[in-house]
Amino acid sequence: MTEVNLTYFDTDGGRAEPLRLLLHIGGIEFTDTRISFTDFGKLRGNYPLKAVPVVEIDGVSYTQTNAMCRYFGKQTGLYPSDPWQGYLCDEIMETVEDAIHFIVRTFGLKDDALLQARQKLVDDRLVPYLKMLAERLDQAGGVYFTGTDFSVADLKMFVWIQGLRSGKLEHIPADLVASVAPTLAEHADRVAAHSGVAGYYANRD
Amino acid sequence: MTEVNLTYFDTDGGRAEPLRLLLHIGGIEFTDTRISFTDFGKLRGNYPLKAVPVVEIDGVSYTQTNAMCRYFGKQTGLYPSDPWQGYLCDEIMETVEDAIHFIVRTFGLKDDALLQARQKLVDDRLVPYLKMLAERLDQAGGVYFTGTDFSVADLKMFVWIQGLRSGKLEHIPADLVASVAPTLAEHADRVAAHSGVAGYYANRD
Repeated sequence: MTEVNLTYFDTDGGRAEPLRLLLHIGGIEFTDTRISFTDFGKLRGNYPLKAVPVVEIDGVSYTQTNAMCRYFGKQTGLYPSDPWQGYLCDEIMETVEDAIHFIVRTFGLKDDALLQARQKLVDDRLVPYLKMLAERLDQAGGVYFTGTDFSVADLKMFVWIQGLRSGKLEHIPADLVASVAPTLAEHADRVAAHSGVAGYYANRD
Repeated sequence: MTEVNLTYFDTDGGRAEPLRLLLHIGGIEFTDTRISFTDFGKLRGNYPLKAVPVVEIDGVSYTQTNAMCRYFGKQTGLYPSDPWQGYLCDEIMETVEDAIHFIVRTFGLKDDALLQARQKLVDDRLVPYLKMLAERLDQAGGVYFTGTDFSVADLKMFVWIQGLRSGKLEHIPADLVASVAPTLAEHADRVAAHSGVAGYYANRD
């Protein structure tokens, strides 16, 4: 029996959440280790890239949750077996990861510097990214990102879009997604209502 | 017959180069479209994420070269069919992509701001990343990143390491890789000598 331990911050979002959802929906038991920012300062020296998420499998630490989602997705039917559908799934996951990098760049800024960086982020990155992703959803038929089958691309998008809609990112309007790419907001609502996703949040301690 | 057109800057490096090498080695014909920075300014509005690389397949534009490398890698034997080997390949490719994001963040800075950002980049990111990647190579047996078979992970690492060793990135010492992770420098030399890679550069116009 493989032991899986996923370490991340104590938030129902961010880079670990798609993998948490995938493991839960796929029925793979794992330890959901949640650390505080203080813990992170003490522990990061032990992590392979001095960052979280970290996934330990039988005691060995691995990185890159998109890669882990792909690996566990293949085991649980949440990653397409067809190579082109796999490409479409990957393009979505990697585009979201790209966008997260651009968002993280603006963390730690303050006052006017934060305002300017966030406005540039919205105009130069988030708006084109949201439009492209909405187009991909449309090309896939409008329901899920790889067609009729629910996949990890839907989980990745759901977590990211919910974060954008939370209003917690200063100067990123909570209605940005609804105004620029309403089909992505509808998609996130669809994923939230998926029995595996809804069941997970209903039973979170 | 599928028509593939890869658009990127006119450099034998960066984000397009692993895919160029993979397509060449895998025997997949493609148009290698190289644009100037001036062209980019005029054309970027047409690209899905306002960025390059862009891959057109039969006239439709797609993004994310790691995803494309995986797709074409599956067709050409340059991506592992075993899911765990696939994970190991993906972890390497995504870790390099992460590192590229951190490097790109320092572009456009000048003078003392550039010096400070590059020193922080080396200490906080590049050194731990290089050490982790050297450990992965060691765990895989020391020759190629997914074991005995040459894969797209080796191409991705090769292009990135050659860039770091070029000395073209100010304040990133050209001998950083050799001093922090000598096995990665040896790996890049090994890939450079691979018949497909050496043949490609010998015949580049």
